[in-house]
Formats: sequence, C-alpha cells, structure tokens
Amino acid sequence: MAEFMDVHRGMKGITDDQLMEAHRADLAIEGEEGVHFKHAWADPESGTVYCLSEGPSADAVQRVHQRAGHPADEIHAVPVAV
Amino acid sequence: MAEFMDVHRGMKGITDDQLMEAHRADLAIEGEEGVHFKHAWADPESGTVYCLSEGPSADAVQRVHQRAGHPADEIHAVPVAV
Repeated sequence: MAEFMDVHRGMKGITDDQLMEAHRADLAIEGEEGVHFKHAWADPESGTVYCLSEGPSADAVQRVHQRAGHPADEIHAVPVAV
Repeated sequence: MAEFMDVHRGMKGITDDQLMEAHRADLAIEGEEGVHFKHAWADPESGTVYCLSEGPSADAVQRVHQRAGHPADEIHAVPVAV
C-alpha cells in the first residue's frame, strides 16, 4: 500500500457539509478499489481541495474519485513523509 | 490558529533524509512565528512537497519556510477539513 495526495481545483466556496458529503461518497465505495481516504483539507477561497489516501495505485484512487463524481486534477504518490 | 497546506515544487529526487532535514530546520525556528509544522509529504518523481501546518497566518508560515531556506510556492488556508 502506498500513500497518495490528490488535488481538486475549482471548488470555490466549498463548505464543511459539502466536503463531508464528498468524503462520505468516497468512503462508501473506496473498499471496492482497496483504497482508504484518510483526510481532506479545503481552501474555499481558491477552491482547492487536498485529499490524503492510501491504496494500491494512483489509478485506484482516481477510480474512487471518478465513481463518486469528483475526479482529481492531480494525484501524487507521496512515498517520502515526515 | 488556522491550518495551512503549502506546496513546494522543483524538489525532484527528494529523499527521506532531505525531507527530514528540511522539516527539522522548520521545527527549529517555527516557535518564533507561532507556527507548527505537523506533517510533510513528498513526491520525488514530480518534485512536489506538501506541508500541513497551523499558525496565525499564511505570512507567518511563509516566514518560517523562507528563513529555513525553502520558501513555499503556494500557501493555502484550509479552514474546511475532514
């Protein structure tokens, strides 16, 4: 299992409820891809959302986000962390 | 106190030791700005580093990174999180 940081843009004005709803949509199906979304952070002003996950591949992470209706703009494996 | 996600680019090939060294340089001076760097994640392939911190302002976060020798390319307040 590897760790991934993905980035969504264009989410200006995102609220706590909207982020939670999007996160729950990921959690509902993530197991089918062997992925787990651990955290998400949003900047409503610039419309940027960062999601930290673990899973078998960036493609698996993207499949969950796509099926949940919010594909990521970037996905980075982050094998180096402190 | 607010939470911030900042992004550094151009760090291709960054190693565990290099990330730890950069993180320690932040930790050594962060208290002077009322900032705390909580985590950092790096993608050595694209050269992208994400840092999660808390502090009084984005400017304070940037001052720590600048003084430690690695200014961030972007800093986002992330008041919405799950």
